[in-house]
Amino acid sequence: MAATLHDVARVAGVSFKTVSNVINNHPHVRESTRAKVEQAIRELGYRPNLTARSLRSGHTGAITLALPQLSLPYFAELADAVIEAAAKCGLVVLVEQTGADRDRELEVMASPRLKMSDGLIFSPLALGQEDADLIKAEVPIVLLGERIFGSTSDHVTMQNVTAARTATEHLLDLGRKRIAVVGAHEGEVIGSAGLRLRGYREALEARGIPYDDGIVAYVVDWHRSNGAAAMHDLLDRGAQFDAVFGLNDTLAQGAVRVLQEAGFRVPDDVAVIGFDDLDETRYSLPTLSTVDPGRTEIAETAIRMLMDRIKDPAGMPPREVETAFQVVPRESTVGRAAAVPA
Amino acid sequence: MAATLHDVARVAGVSFKTVSNVINNHPHVRESTRAKVEQAIRELGYRPNLTARSLRSGHTGAITLALPQLSLPYFAELADAVIEAAAKCGLVVLVEQTGADRDRELEVMASPRLKMSDGLIFSPLALGQEDADLIKAEVPIVLLGERIFGSTSDHVTMQNVTAARTATEHLLDLGRKRIAVVGAHEGEVIGSAGLRLRGYREALEARGIPYDDGIVAYVVDWHRSNGAAAMHDLLDRGAQFDAVFGLNDTLAQGAVRVLQEAGFRVPDDVAVIGFDDLDETRYSLPTLSTVDPGRTEIAETAIRMLMDRIKDPAGMPPREVETAFQVVPRESTVGRAAAVPA
Repeated sequence: MAATLHDVARVAGVSFKTVSNVINNHPHVRESTRAKVEQAIRELGYRPNLTARSLRSGHTGAITLALPQLSLPYFAELADAVIEAAAKCGLVVLVEQTGADRDRELEVMASPRLKMSDGLIFSPLALGQEDADLIKAEVPIVLLGERIFGSTSDHVTMQNVTAARTATEHLLDLGRKRIAVVGAHEGEVIGSAGLRLRGYREALEARGIPYDDGIVAYVVDWHRSNGAAAMHDLLDRGAQFDAVFGLNDTLAQGAVRVLQEAGFRVPDDVAVIGFDDLDETRYSLPTLSTVDPGRTEIAETAIRMLMDRIKDPAGMPPREVETAFQVVPRESTVGRAAAVPA
Repeated sequence: MAATLHDVARVAGVSFKTVSNVINNHPHVRESTRAKVEQAIRELGYRPNLTARSLRSGHTGAITLALPQLSLPYFAELADAVIEAAAKCGLVVLVEQTGADRDRELEVMASPRLKMSDGLIFSPLALGQEDADLIKAEVPIVLLGERIFGSTSDHVTMQNVTAARTATEHLLDLGRKRIAVVGAHEGEVIGSAGLRLRGYREALEARGIPYDDGIVAYVVDWHRSNGAAAMHDLLDRGAQFDAVFGLNDTLAQGAVRVLQEAGFRVPDDVAVIGFDDLDETRYSLPTLSTVDPGRTEIAETAIRMLMDRIKDPAGMPPREVETAFQVVPRESTVGRAAAVPA
């Protein structure tokens, strides 16, 4: 019979509450008390069993989060937000990285591993609209992103088009007229790149500024290195511009660095805005203006929807939620004096 | 009976090899061929079963990676490296974030979820040396980090002490005499902070420079915000220094930003080095000198050891491997001209 917290309390000669405080790293525990409890834990070979309660309820207490790639900071920070939101509901999160590989994305939904979770939060990058009817699993799914609409799953998405239009308008409002784009995907219509490019074009059109493909830089991936390479390309081909819209923050950071190396002042010569509001944008020189796409809200909404669905799988028709966004003006567009403090 | 790749090939009227190329996103597939195959996949409702082969062998084809926190970029990039190394061996990776919580770290090893993996790569942050005998699970474990030695598990660690000493020597070799530390942990002996601080002290001692606690800034976490706050503290108390050793890169980046805001030139007035060689250090202004702790080697070694152990759990005594490190001098210590290109 496995030792319980009550056994630990008895052996340590302290209350159950004190044991719980020690285990949860509560700050107000005397060192000597902590030592006694830890000694009892070792003596008894006590192992916490977080899943015991859940097993009684027929649930595992775990959910799966499937996303493209943790080396893209957006997804690392999203994973962190999901894990935090899940923890508030007593759920642990298993993260699966699909590498934006179609096969892996399908496998995630079909895997026997998934039965060890109560549900799946799924951000596909290879599957598209035509795969809407393949989105199913033996557990409830909440979809993230903009690649698949109209499946039978609940869905949380950000306002890519409107947010990108607003970011572009921010640059136009500052008097910038030639706004280069870093990070477009050749031929993409749906997907973050396609939708953000659409928002950019809408903003130009509304002001009567013609779209110029000559200042749009195409990339395959969205790492800092791709942003740097794209900016090198633009400069090499003599493109003229007074602002840059990086379709995500890492692209923008790569582009800023290359601009600085080439002797351009940011924002004086070239204003730059990104997208994602990554933590690092608050600490770079200059701090990076960006779009906060509502990552925390995305995570919390997804967890809430999944919890509802786990409780009552067929309790309501599929829901679709768009989170609120916000343009965050920082030094890379408005300069030091006008920027909001980091 | 589920559709197989052979069924897909038959319906699409192409070879098995072509179907495999399409599914694996091979670049040299004609668009019309890809369309035919994808149509057949949809018609048949084909789902790839990556685990079929493994199930026959009694293995799941999945391993678990348990780490403290994905919002610390070091762990996000480590996770990515592990996932990449695992993929080369045909393994998928489930990531569990423990939040450096003792309870969660113990739970990871005891969880019934773990039975869905063939093995565990485990980077503990709350468990310590006294818990060595608690490191066990029903599957093989490879430990990462420096908190627990002498368990019965295989173990991969970086050379924290020597690498930190070499980083400090790099600053001393540049003629810097007052090297502040950002990111020490109050009272820590083992753990990354404690070991790196020891390396720093060894370097000073070897040159006959007295250790001065007045230029050591203590923090609780290792985020950019902690580095910024620590540097504010140092400046507020009038600490005098001509160099900074950030015990990791995010701390260093936060510190650099605050130095720049306060009017210090990096590296002219204050040289700064970090630790981890994060991707972002190549793109900041200035680029950040750092220590490459051998992340790829850590990941590949851990995967190789785990594979050995899965094949033959008791085939050899527990092994301990230290990876090679390298100091990477960039602009934040040697200036623009002497820095290695990003």
